Amino acid sequence: MIKVGIVGGTGYTGVELLRLLAVHPNVELKAITSRGDAGLPVAEMFPNLRGRVDLAFEDPAKANLAACDVVFFATPNGIAMQQAPELLAKGVKVIDLAADYRIKDIPTWEQWYGMTHASPDWVGKAVYGLPEINRDAVKKAQLIANPGCYPTAVQLGLLPLIEAGVIDVNSLIADTKSGVSGAGRKAEIPTLFAEASDNFKAYGVPGHRHLPEIRQGLSLAANKDVGLTFVPHLTPLIRGIHATLYARITKEADFQKLFEERYKGETFVDVLPAGKHPETRSVRASNVCRIAVHRPQGGDTLVILSVIDNLVKGAAGQAVQNMNLLFGLDETAGLNIVPVLP
Amino acid sequence: MIKVGIVGGTGYTGVELLRLLAVHPNVELKAITSRGDAGLPVAEMFPNLRGRVDLAFEDPAKANLAACDVVFFATPNGIAMQQAPELLAKGVKVIDLAADYRIKDIPTWEQWYGMTHASPDWVGKAVYGLPEINRDAVKKAQLIANPGCYPTAVQLGLLPLIEAGVIDVNSLIADTKSGVSGAGRKAEIPTLFAEASDNFKAYGVPGHRHLPEIRQGLSLAANKDVGLTFVPHLTPLIRGIHATLYARITKEADFQKLFEERYKGETFVDVLPAGKHPETRSVRASNVCRIAVHRPQGGDTLVILSVIDNLVKGAAGQAVQNMNLLFGLDETAGLNIVPVLP
Amino acid sequence: MIKVGIVGGTGYTGVELLRLLAVHPNVELKAITSRGDAGLPVAEMFPNLRGRVDLAFEDPAKANLAACDVVFFATPNGIAMQQAPELLAKGVKVIDLAADYRIKDIPTWEQWYGMTHASPDWVGKAVYGLPEINRDAVKKAQLIANPGCYPTAVQLGLLPLIEAGVIDVNSLIADTKSGVSGAGRKAEIPTLFAEASDNFKAYGVPGHRHLPEIRQGLSLAANKDVGLTFVPHLTPLIRGIHATLYARITKEADFQKLFEERYKGETFVDVLPAGKHPETRSVRASNVCRIAVHRPQGGDTLVILSVIDNLVKGAAGQAVQNMNLLFGLDETAGLNIVPVLP
Amino acid sequence: MIKVGIVGGTGYTGVELLRLLAVHPNVELKAITSRGDAGLPVAEMFPNLRGRVDLAFEDPAKANLAACDVVFFATPNGIAMQQAPELLAKGVKVIDLAADYRIKDIPTWEQWYGMTHASPDWVGKAVYGLPEINRDAVKKAQLIANPGCYPTAVQLGLLPLIEAGVIDVNSLIADTKSGVSGAGRKAEIPTLFAEASDNFKAYGVPGHRHLPEIRQGLSLAANKDVGLTFVPHLTPLIRGIHATLYARITKEADFQKLFEERYKGETFVDVLPAGKHPETRSVRASNVCRIAVHRPQGGDTLVILSVIDNLVKGAAGQAVQNMNLLFGLDETAGLNIVPVLP
Repeated sequence: MIKVGIVGGTGYTGVELLRLLAVHPNVELKAITSRGDAGLPVAEMFPNLRGRVDLAFEDPAKANLAACDVVFFATPNGIAMQQAPELLAKGVKVIDLAADYRIKDIPTWEQWYGMTHASPDWVGKAVYGLPEINRDAVKKAQLIANPGCYPTAVQLGLLPLIEAGVIDVNSLIADTKSGVSGAGRKAEIPTLFAEASDNFKAYGVPGHRHLPEIRQGLSLAANKDVGLTFVPHLTPLIRGIHATLYARITKEADFQKLFEERYKGETFVDVLPAGKHPETRSVRASNVCRIAVHRPQGGDTLVILSVIDNLVKGAAGQAVQNMNLLFGLDETAGLNIVPVLP
Repeated sequence: MIKVGIVGGTGYTGVELLRLLAVHPNVELKAITSRGDAGLPVAEMFPNLRGRVDLAFEDPAKANLAACDVVFFATPNGIAMQQAPELLAKGVKVIDLAADYRIKDIPTWEQWYGMTHASPDWVGKAVYGLPEINRDAVKKAQLIANPGCYPTAVQLGLLPLIEAGVIDVNSLIADTKSGVSGAGRKAEIPTLFAEASDNFKAYGVPGHRHLPEIRQGLSLAANKDVGLTFVPHLTPLIRGIHATLYARITKEADFQKLFEERYKGETFVDVLPAGKHPETRSVRASNVCRIAVHRPQGGDTLVILSVIDNLVKGAAGQAVQNMNLLFGLDETAGLNIVPVLP
Repeated sequence: MIKVGIVGGTGYTGVELLRLLAVHPNVELKAITSRGDAGLPVAEMFPNLRGRVDLAFEDPAKANLAACDVVFFATPNGIAMQQAPELLAKGVKVIDLAADYRIKDIPTWEQWYGMTHASPDWVGKAVYGLPEINRDAVKKAQLIANPGCYPTAVQLGLLPLIEAGVIDVNSLIADTKSGVSGAGRKAEIPTLFAEASDNFKAYGVPGHRHLPEIRQGLSLAANKDVGLTFVPHLTPLIRGIHATLYARITKEADFQKLFEERYKGETFVDVLPAGKHPETRSVRASNVCRIAVHRPQGGDTLVILSVIDNLVKGAAGQAVQNMNLLFGLDETAGLNIVPVLP
Repeated sequence: MIKVGIVGGTGYTGVELLRLLAVHPNVELKAITSRGDAGLPVAEMFPNLRGRVDLAFEDPAKANLAACDVVFFATPNGIAMQQAPELLAKGVKVIDLAADYRIKDIPTWEQWYGMTHASPDWVGKAVYGLPEINRDAVKKAQLIANPGCYPTAVQLGLLPLIEAGVIDVNSLIADTKSGVSGAGRKAEIPTLFAEASDNFKAYGVPGHRHLPEIRQGLSLAANKDVGLTFVPHLTPLIRGIHATLYARITKEADFQKLFEERYKGETFVDVLPAGKHPETRSVRASNVCRIAVHRPQGGDTLVILSVIDNLVKGAAGQAVQNMNLLFGLDETAGLNIVPVLP
């Protein structure tokens, strides 16, 4: 059994990790920390965990995380970069669900996140945990930078085209829509039910922190800086991301087949038959990304539709997938979930 | 492996059975029928099942259901009473998720359901599949009448009090609220998103078909006819039933303890600590019923709050629980699901 | 033109007052205050008011409220009781949308609201602003205690029966359901979209502040203390209250006719034909209360269904109705709104 | 008073017309027809109209529509083209809310709508009723082709740029999101609450009927055929369209100012200050279109955000605006509605 610790378990990625790990066949939950709620039984905050998780939140200063095999950071940005190095030094593996180790270029990270990086040396050693791109590196890593939700949906949708060199990488467009849980479990007015329900809006159009992360991933595949317009929207779902991706074709190909071959054998990426439209609910509560490839009216613009559950493939599920790889388990262990529909 | 057939798999109880059975460790899905959609791959109608269920819907006239160990009827009322007897005669076990075999009194059934019963002799042999009440009988049954959604939530909430003889059974009130999936996957205007979203209403106040079913169960426990006012409401949830139950105290007792003892050892009934309020989402996608016991201002009225997922404990999950009992499996096999929250 | 001021305009009752008053033919908006947002144009916080309200929030200490003919307090409980007396002394009329002046018995108020009342002498002079009960007193009042949302829906549903002396007032039950805007525009986790959407729960079952207010109104009509069990629930609507009311019949009557006669001539109370069920959306954004009367299976229990928009008839609309009465205007001025459906 | 008739009043554009016209100061509702529901009082189908609309649906064969000054067709596509000519011949003005007269090129219309046009001669005489573009022509028209919902939002967002000649019209992208009422009041499974709630999907990516309508309008302004990729999505709102529009800059300009000047004096188009994001709820139930102009990171791509209420500015409200122009009324008569927020 893998001994697991979670730092910062009171947010949505925390409770989602607990939902998955509570029934993971190879995991023993050892500790979960929260500065503000130390002492509170986890199941009192999250009643879905009654009878499934007996732990109480522990004070981070007192929890014996060093005794764990792996520690997940489900914390706000800026925490893991301070606390992970001590654990890493003791040989503990770390999976950071925040953004601290995702961006390789430190000045870029510092500019977008507005802080000085506390452990820049670890950034270079961190492996970007998108297994469908980086599986071998993930297996050997000690520190995993778990990708953001939008970056997962957008990269899985665009990378096959970029790798194949069939689109113009200077004029990519990612029009993305997220459920409200993507904003986290924070007491804020704009995400109140009475504000976000029956409402739709774009936000962060001038610049969103996931832009440099996506650009880094796509540029790596393109071997050059890509041009990307990234527009996120808030939509009244609890869970789910829908990315609508636009790319100009530069080289003819069988695009449907290109995707099918690229993701053949990938358990968690499902390329829909031609002509279909994926729905966010078709992946609800599961680790699957579903993708459809369209070329409207046979024109020169490809439209790729990519959906994930932002809390699973976009966060906690992908983290568990990475953990499975890190420990040589079946990649699907604990993730054999049929999406919940309706 | 238990060979399983499903009759009428295109509704919400059908797809929910498939979600549960697709990962049930002891089940082999053999056939699923639909008159209208024969030939269509199941996963084309329900994309959450892509890669999980390879069957196509079969014409009910052609499917070899007699080769199954158990057949679930996820059909509209009035189908099982016609088709189940032939299977039963061949020794197949049958679990009917519709109402055909729930009401013991044939005239009462015929009055509320507006049809002549086609196999009244089987009504007497059918076992009402509420395991927390009827576990031993379920184990030995050949034909299970799987309870309705409202009846499950209401009976689990009231029976401990009635069995203990501590309330007035002449003036019971069940104010119940259901998510919209309870109305089924039928093309009808009142359950359109633009009608049912951001809206709340009562319906069926003059009389709802679940009333005689609930009254039968409660009267059996009370050893006399009970008086019950039953008011259902439609609330903008996909899944979930919340029953708010009112009963006048006739005999003092430690009501909290009474419930805790009654359900001690029941995996799927969770009595909350005193003072708590259960939320429908705390059971979402799981087979659990959560119950809270209140006595406002120490008065003479008890308020019992009981929540279930109408598609799981209120339909498909309870059916799987009954199947597990029928075949001597662990009662929780295939039902080890952590509720999905948020 | 009536010169109007609003104290505390940043909540949902504030923006709703502005929506109504911005197009009221007899009103000139003079000032709107907010301690935290002084200087901010109102339309920047509430974009629906762009081009309709040109005011900015003013510091309450600086706003010239004494120059207004009437001041609405759309503040948290405990503010009006401190600030209204100074305005009242200067002859300004005051309509308090909070609870400060609703409960005549000071110790009861202090117990439920957890504060010492700052102007108990004004409590006796305040008129409870439910025009359908108190129209004449409202017309002559200087200080109006605008009723709570639940109390409006429950009292309009039960008072005709109590006034007629046809029900047992010792065992009344009010099972009420509210949209999330009823919780106010406050940054709190339980009312986040990801918490309150697709979820249903009871709350405050041990005791809710609207209980003494309802009890006071009903007891006044009954000429004795009534017994009431009051259970509020949170339902995923933005706006709307649905009260389901249960009463035991003590005297036969034509209950449908009783309601129709009681509310004949009332513009804002609509008694539905027998057998109908009111929907919250049928009153959305309007000042109407719709009521239906049921007697299931001809038994001894009446079920009254009463719906309002909690922000209109349950708050701002009723306040405007009271203002119209206070100033001798047509009671419907500014309230001639067709409910928004779908 | 203008005598008004409505053909086909049982859909969402029908009830929305009634909501607006019931309080329009210059309108007398004379007749509303429905083949299927003749005889039914309108307010029985739409309870929000109780006390506001006393008409019953009439059999279209019997209604005296020729006695009206103007007749609105709120019918499915293909009805107005058959029934309007007879009324037009009698001098009645007609506003068609369906698509029958929107597309000038008959073969294009017949290809996208799959029928033979029944009155192609009237197509040329029809005026496309987008007042912000076509005001003078509208005033003199007898037959108005009221624009589609998506076409309204997209054209108002792109036309200023095209008219100014500052963008590449060969590579326009319109990523649009609609609330579910846009699908109409039809009993269909995909728009059930349990299907469309908590779900997001694209649809019609291979081709949607609003594409040729938008292309026609943009091409007219560009004086050449434009290239447009149009991707509609279904989002869980009742009302609202959000269009996210992407255009490549070909000529530098002060884009914010360009929009402000283009729409100066337009009551129903509101250009937000730079940096803002419009929300669909900020126009809920009103005839306003709100637009924001963004140029992310100062790159060469403009992002225009345009929101409307699909049932008002996208259908019934625009139809009333056109009626006001047709009859020389104040353009805002009956449309002085403050959006409903929250």
